[in-house]
Amino acid sequence: MYDETIFKTRAAEIIRAGRFFFERGWVPATAGNFSARLDADHMAITVSGRHKGELDEDGIMVVDLEGNVLTKDKRPSAETFLHIILYRRDPALGSVLHTHSVNATLLSILARREGRTELVLSDYEVLKALPGIDTHASSVRVPVFANDQNIPRLAAQVDDHMQKHRDVHGYLIEGHGFYTWGVDVETARRHVEAFEFLFECEMQLRRLGS
Amino acid sequence: MYDETIFKTRAAEIIRAGRFFFERGWVPATAGNFSARLDADHMAITVSGRHKGELDEDGIMVVDLEGNVLTKDKRPSAETFLHIILYRRDPALGSVLHTHSVNATLLSILARREGRTELVLSDYEVLKALPGIDTHASSVRVPVFANDQNIPRLAAQVDDHMQKHRDVHGYLIEGHGFYTWGVDVETARRHVEAFEFLFECEMQLRRLGS
Amino acid sequence: MYDETIFKTRAAEIIRAGRFFFERGWVPATAGNFSARLDADHMAITVSGRHKGELDEDGIMVVDLEGNVLTKDKRPSAETFLHIILYRRDPALGSVLHTHSVNATLLSILARREGRTELVLSDYEVLKALPGIDTHASSVRVPVFANDQNIPRLAAQVDDHMQKHRDVHGYLIEGHGFYTWGVDVETARRHVEAFEFLFECEMQLRRLGS
Amino acid sequence: MYDETIFKTRAAEIIRAGRFFFERGWVPATAGNFSARLDADHMAITVSGRHKGELDEDGIMVVDLEGNVLTKDKRPSAETFLHIILYRRDPALGSVLHTHSVNATLLSILARREGRTELVLSDYEVLKALPGIDTHASSVRVPVFANDQNIPRLAAQVDDHMQKHRDVHGYLIEGHGFYTWGVDVETARRHVEAFEFLFECEMQLRRLGS
Repeated sequence: MYDETIFKTRAAEIIRAGRFFFERGWVPATAGNFSARLDADHMAITVSGRHKGELDEDGIMVVDLEGNVLTKDKRPSAETFLHIILYRRDPALGSVLHTHSVNATLLSILARREGRTELVLSDYEVLKALPGIDTHASSVRVPVFANDQNIPRLAAQVDDHMQKHRDVHGYLIEGHGFYTWGVDVETARRHVEAFEFLFECEMQLRRLGS
Repeated sequence: MYDETIFKTRAAEIIRAGRFFFERGWVPATAGNFSARLDADHMAITVSGRHKGELDEDGIMVVDLEGNVLTKDKRPSAETFLHIILYRRDPALGSVLHTHSVNATLLSILARREGRTELVLSDYEVLKALPGIDTHASSVRVPVFANDQNIPRLAAQVDDHMQKHRDVHGYLIEGHGFYTWGVDVETARRHVEAFEFLFECEMQLRRLGS
Repeated sequence: MYDETIFKTRAAEIIRAGRFFFERGWVPATAGNFSARLDADHMAITVSGRHKGELDEDGIMVVDLEGNVLTKDKRPSAETFLHIILYRRDPALGSVLHTHSVNATLLSILARREGRTELVLSDYEVLKALPGIDTHASSVRVPVFANDQNIPRLAAQVDDHMQKHRDVHGYLIEGHGFYTWGVDVETARRHVEAFEFLFECEMQLRRLGS
Repeated sequence: MYDETIFKTRAAEIIRAGRFFFERGWVPATAGNFSARLDADHMAITVSGRHKGELDEDGIMVVDLEGNVLTKDKRPSAETFLHIILYRRDPALGSVLHTHSVNATLLSILARREGRTELVLSDYEVLKALPGIDTHASSVRVPVFANDQNIPRLAAQVDDHMQKHRDVHGYLIEGHGFYTWGVDVETARRHVEAFEFLFECEMQLRRLGS
């Protein structure tokens, strides 16, 4: 079983991250979902249908990495399996955050319309906020997947992609939003901040026709 | 008569929604008006001319669904009848929220200029925040009515439209703003959030010439 | 002499308005200045060089409508005379607010570049927030003056314009910002809100080439 | 040695400035760094890798103007030398603030792409917020340097430029952000506000093709 004290600590971090994202408009209505690892086999994850900017501990539950629900009478986010595959791939991974900003929505739609399956971010100093990047003279490739209500199928596609590309720091789903992660909630949140900053830069460059 | 305790609870929800919208710039000056059902025959509604981001209980009054004012010495929003027709149509409806954002203003103006009487929102994951929609592969049609200072006439037009189109989730008035609703204030507020998110997406796509 | 209690009340209203404008980005650095009438002959006005989003009572002083400074060792805003002419013109006027938003700055620059001396705002429901306007089917003309460091000369120009055009609700100064007013600070602040909303609409229409 | 009380006062000012910038989106993830002079030979500066919007005193340390670290077990910002050269040049300088906004990032990228090494800001009233400028009819030249992970080399380039151009009020680094300064933290922060306002104006003019 999981440790209840660790659950409460992680839940508090998730609640805080949700409020932070909401203030910036990155989790409108009930969009977005967040999780944090509790131990080798369990994660805390947001309950389905809750407003992610106004979470309390009741809006967070425990699911094991097989997908079994450990909190009674609650249904986890429909996208739980997208979280599970990431924790299974990397034992050092401590948090997965899915946000749903206007920019992430539009950049993913525009990329797919243009026949592209990735967004490339190059030569920005802020890239150094991502693990393993120590110069602005870098390129980060963000895959863009087609949206799919069949989450196991989408998860398998993401997992397959990550198997082939070990340096992925986050991915977009068309018209749906962004997934990123980190060793803990705080670090994952900073990755969201860095990517959202870059998404805004990219959108503005598009507006200028650059 | 209506229940005073229920009035106070609904008023508090309306005050909170108003503050929320104001922080996002969706109810400038004295724009916007909000209501919540008290029972089968009564609703709480904002008093005319109040600032909707700085409401207190004094800024909210009771009107019955015939349009009779039940709070002494107060005048309800000029658009009260636009609320009444919605409560009359659907006994399960618990709240009507009218916001007045820049994007709602502009999208309604642009649609009418272009000779269109609706805005179509398609293939966005956020559409799933609306009742009865369970896939992003959906289209939501938002009718756009011409502005009219004759509210009964405008209300009759809206009522007629909704009689013919049962799946309307909200509507725009040209140069004026947006109306949406839900089973309670909280749900209606989430519908506002979802639509405002989509209005921002649509405006940005227009800016990109897409 | 003026009433100290009235001064304190008006000062508190000015402080609150300043914080409000600052949160929205309408008084960057030390830009902007605000005043409120104390009686037939006196006004409270912001001290020169203060940050208008972080005012305290020490940042507000008294000047009479001849321009005489009544608070020791303080220098009023360089634009004091632009406030005085408005109070002199209209005994019912209770507050003058000068904000300095990006949109006001740019719309005034663009108008002058295009050889125009006014901005016309038409067919917006929000126009009804201004005194004497009861339908969206209205046009409000906002004069745009060239910037001038010679304030008495600029004030004379504004005064002359208002003598000829009795329905002015506010004016722009090129590359400098916006002046509006009302019967009290609260009402003047709502006029700022309404105009800033409309400036944002106009800027977005420009971006769309409309 | 430096005075601990002065350190605590300057640290509190830096913490407050960081929160202020973060709320406006000007220091995403761990971007940005801030310093304040303690005396002729010492400065307080942000610790490397901290989130600049959520600093506490533990996130600020002391470095002398030779670059020697005086706080045990902490590593100062990688860009410490960019701060040191400014304090050495001007004994009256009390604070250096480096922010990292979307607009500063993009204007610097666009300038370099267009083969320009400066951004010129002209005819804005807000220019008067900068020292020595008393009319809007002024031009401020903001040099734009290429980004470089070799900080001593970049610092030497900045120092050389400032030796030749005595009226520099701030500079941009390509894809990286903005540096400005002032006699104290409060004044430097106002310079950031003024420049960010102007960067937003310039970006919007670019969007309009002006």
